[in-house]
Amino acid sequence: MSARRVAGPEIERLIQLLAKLPGLGPRSARRAALHLIKRKDQLMVPLAAAMQSAVDSVRVCSRCGNIDTVDPCTICTDPRREAALLVVVEDVSDLWALERAAAINAAYHVLGGTLSPLDGVGPEDLNIASLVERVREAPGVELILAINATVEGQTTAHYLTEQLAGLDVKVTRLAHGVPVGGELDYLDEGTLAAAIRQRREF
Amino acid sequence: MSARRVAGPEIERLIQLLAKLPGLGPRSARRAALHLIKRKDQLMVPLAAAMQSAVDSVRVCSRCGNIDTVDPCTICTDPRREAALLVVVEDVSDLWALERAAAINAAYHVLGGTLSPLDGVGPEDLNIASLVERVREAPGVELILAINATVEGQTTAHYLTEQLAGLDVKVTRLAHGVPVGGELDYLDEGTLAAAIRQRREF
Repeated sequence: MSARRVAGPEIERLIQLLAKLPGLGPRSARRAALHLIKRKDQLMVPLAAAMQSAVDSVRVCSRCGNIDTVDPCTICTDPRREAALLVVVEDVSDLWALERAAAINAAYHVLGGTLSPLDGVGPEDLNIASLVERVREAPGVELILAINATVEGQTTAHYLTEQLAGLDVKVTRLAHGVPVGGELDYLDEGTLAAAIRQRREF
Repeated sequence: MSARRVAGPEIERLIQLLAKLPGLGPRSARRAALHLIKRKDQLMVPLAAAMQSAVDSVRVCSRCGNIDTVDPCTICTDPRREAALLVVVEDVSDLWALERAAAINAAYHVLGGTLSPLDGVGPEDLNIASLVERVREAPGVELILAINATVEGQTTAHYLTEQLAGLDVKVTRLAHGVPVGGELDYLDEGTLAAAIRQRREF
């Protein structure tokens, strides 16, 4: 028997869109929709407003690629950050993970991914040119490559060092506390902090 | 070290609210927020609109307790439904599960929970009086108790039959295809359909 449409189009559309969130499948999207409908005033109204507010206010930092409500972002304009330390990450989620661990008091540069020729991701698709420019403008800076220990991540790290050849920069990488094949966002704060402390010359 | 605030208040609030959805913890709520921010136009804008539309249009059916955008709901006003068959469920999610299985072409009555003295849920907190009224107005109706096979569900079923004593109604319950201790919303469609087919006199 073919399944009948269970609820009105407004509810079906809500379920459909919720199912596009990572971690939610069709069944959990239905549960989430019902949860929202039952908690209309306590949850659905504020969540819709929070999303609208994020739509209106969130922007990408033109300096480092971080996501924030101001441009340049709060981290870029924070005077307490050590300006001579620049942590290079693949994604904003990695920046968040390092900040949660309070692993280092540095500025960041978000690449926006890793080189992946098979997926058609080349250097021009990542924030690499802007990184080289930042290094050129800050002689003596230490660049900490906090890039995932995957094949693509390491390829990207090597490409970066080639681009930085001849510049006044010390390139380091995270210590081998990071499990090979693992991703930053999944690590506990202690491991992240240790990996930052034990960083080595690249 | 104490964790630093990672993003602006708008983003933090979005993460906080997303974490209240069933199936999302703090980490998956952060991933979902980032996913939404990165897919602002394709996902966050439509999802915020879908929620606002659901807030404006979704209501509870005053007849059966179902959730829909019209009152009485689409099922209550559907002339193709067998009016002499009334399926009693605990929750709208159970109604959705039975409709997805296309297990029966009947009307529904959503109790809104089960009797649970320990949690302070008494008969007056459930849609029981309105069910008795519906049965009184439809002599000869068959009432199919599609209530979860939990202790509270079975207690509720027994209480219902007491309330219906003396009325012209045939009360049946789902066949024992439903695993003891299980919940309707987790069953596959075949089991649900079989349980409806093999319903027995209560």
